[in-house]
Amino acid sequence: MNAEEVLLLTPRDVAGLLTIDDCIGAVEQAFRLYGEGKAIPPGVLSMHMGDGGFHVKAGVLDVGRHYFAAKVNGNFPENPARFGLPTIQGVIVLCDARKGNPLAVMDSRDVTSLRTAAATAVAAKHLARPDSRILTICGCGNQGRVQAVAISRVCRIQRVFTYDTSVQQAERLAQELAAELRIPVTAVSDLATGVQQSDICVTCTTSRQPILALGDVSPGTFIAAVGADNSEKQEIHPDLMANSKIVADILEQCAVMGDLHHAIVAGVVERADVHAELGEIVAAKKAGRASDEEIVVFDSTGMALQDVAVAALVYEKAMRQGCGVRLNFAA
Amino acid sequence: MNAEEVLLLTPRDVAGLLTIDDCIGAVEQAFRLYGEGKAIPPGVLSMHMGDGGFHVKAGVLDVGRHYFAAKVNGNFPENPARFGLPTIQGVIVLCDARKGNPLAVMDSRDVTSLRTAAATAVAAKHLARPDSRILTICGCGNQGRVQAVAISRVCRIQRVFTYDTSVQQAERLAQELAAELRIPVTAVSDLATGVQQSDICVTCTTSRQPILALGDVSPGTFIAAVGADNSEKQEIHPDLMANSKIVADILEQCAVMGDLHHAIVAGVVERADVHAELGEIVAAKKAGRASDEEIVVFDSTGMALQDVAVAALVYEKAMRQGCGVRLNFAA
Repeated sequence: MNAEEVLLLTPRDVAGLLTIDDCIGAVEQAFRLYGEGKAIPPGVLSMHMGDGGFHVKAGVLDVGRHYFAAKVNGNFPENPARFGLPTIQGVIVLCDARKGNPLAVMDSRDVTSLRTAAATAVAAKHLARPDSRILTICGCGNQGRVQAVAISRVCRIQRVFTYDTSVQQAERLAQELAAELRIPVTAVSDLATGVQQSDICVTCTTSRQPILALGDVSPGTFIAAVGADNSEKQEIHPDLMANSKIVADILEQCAVMGDLHHAIVAGVVERADVHAELGEIVAAKKAGRASDEEIVVFDSTGMALQDVAVAALVYEKAMRQGCGVRLNFAA
Repeated sequence: MNAEEVLLLTPRDVAGLLTIDDCIGAVEQAFRLYGEGKAIPPGVLSMHMGDGGFHVKAGVLDVGRHYFAAKVNGNFPENPARFGLPTIQGVIVLCDARKGNPLAVMDSRDVTSLRTAAATAVAAKHLARPDSRILTICGCGNQGRVQAVAISRVCRIQRVFTYDTSVQQAERLAQELAAELRIPVTAVSDLATGVQQSDICVTCTTSRQPILALGDVSPGTFIAAVGADNSEKQEIHPDLMANSKIVADILEQCAVMGDLHHAIVAGVVERADVHAELGEIVAAKKAGRASDEEIVVFDSTGMALQDVAVAALVYEKAMRQGCGVRLNFAA
């Protein structure tokens, strides 16, 4: 492909190219490079409107070739009910970071979904107890399914509990996961019932108040707090944050939009209390879990470098397989 | 087109759809809406690398339909010499601002070029003397050509001088413009020679030091300072800024990256000295030129709303004409 062709990948193309294993590898590499100080800090631009808003997340990563990517996502929570459209829609523009030319434009949905789950898997690999076998998924939308699958690739999960404010959703996901993972999956009507028996708990809801508190969790649990990605969303009670080892994806971002934000506002945690950014642990600059008893919370707000890494992966695979539509962008 | 199709427009498509007259109309409307307080402030995200950088400019505009657009541009000044590629390359992602879904992805080059020239034309219409007949173009790249053409659509230009540090470039543009505008166009080897005889002067160079000072300019001149779009670029001497009526495209942007920035740093101008933003004048909230003697400088740093307005125009025209490639973005 010459410097003036742009590759276009639809949602169907992206879905056919992305595997969760590839995705976990790419996201782990992104966190490692960031932790090693080999990636410049990514940037975020947000614009809010009445019913939703747009976010642009941009970053640069050297994964053999230097890539820049900007993800442009619209986030309109009323979409499913009002228009039968997904809440989050958008595209990723991938560019050569040495020449500036656009290489590809691809749908962002599966990239966002899988890179988010992949970050949890990377965190679980480094922060969950090695003997973790039982998982609770709290929030049974598509992200809940992808999270369970991703964690199963890095931990020997033998049992899953699903929880959702909609019992029907929890039961539907339990059935889906039982079929996909071929292990027992049970919907629970009380979150604490599942979590107290679990080694790992993922919260991936749209909650705006705490749904998981210190009393709900057994010692040694690894918690991935995935849902809160703006300052109004919250899942983890400040008392649980205050009594856990906190690992952020990006400290500055978590301090303004993650569950860390609410713990800081509650006055029970300070930035300095955060143990590490995930990249520092992946890069072996800081230790991960110190004992089988401590509770570790991974505060995941979504890092642009995850998108760059996964978009680059999709692009390179598409080029090898001759997938997608190429447009001539010569003037 | 249903909500899950995305329209793709190559540079060739965009060039075939855009006319400078349409573009001036769309950009004037964008400034008016902004001046009337009917558009939320646009956003900018920049990432710098060794040889260049990327900029994302995003905005929302209601032009009958609500549009969001994010322009993702790479800016690598060594590109022409090193790779035979344009300095600036990129795409614009246009979305429905009520639902968030991407509507179109189009090449950004002609949109950037024409919306920049269109802003000058809008400014000239409101800020040049009505009897303006003579124009100097300083900086004879492609932008110089487009600027001259755009100004000729709103003023009865009868003579043009071209100036460039490369005499050859100045002479080439003089020939091109003479053919295109069918008026006398003369390359000058001394900028002041041209400007002193001119009613309007456009500076659109990549200069990093002042090239136009108070002594070079006759009373009553309208100056469009277009080249400086980052904090290191500069074209207008602070003494000229200090003795002119200054109109900014976006005050906050000009104060950090325009010629205004350098005048503030030099200590001869304060933000409060700026007469108006162009939108306020277009919206008739503030008066424009007050006399035939005053020098007026339009500091143009490039506003995301210009991109939104022109991208929406291109999209709507393409849809009417059945132009471009449509991809199915249903999952």
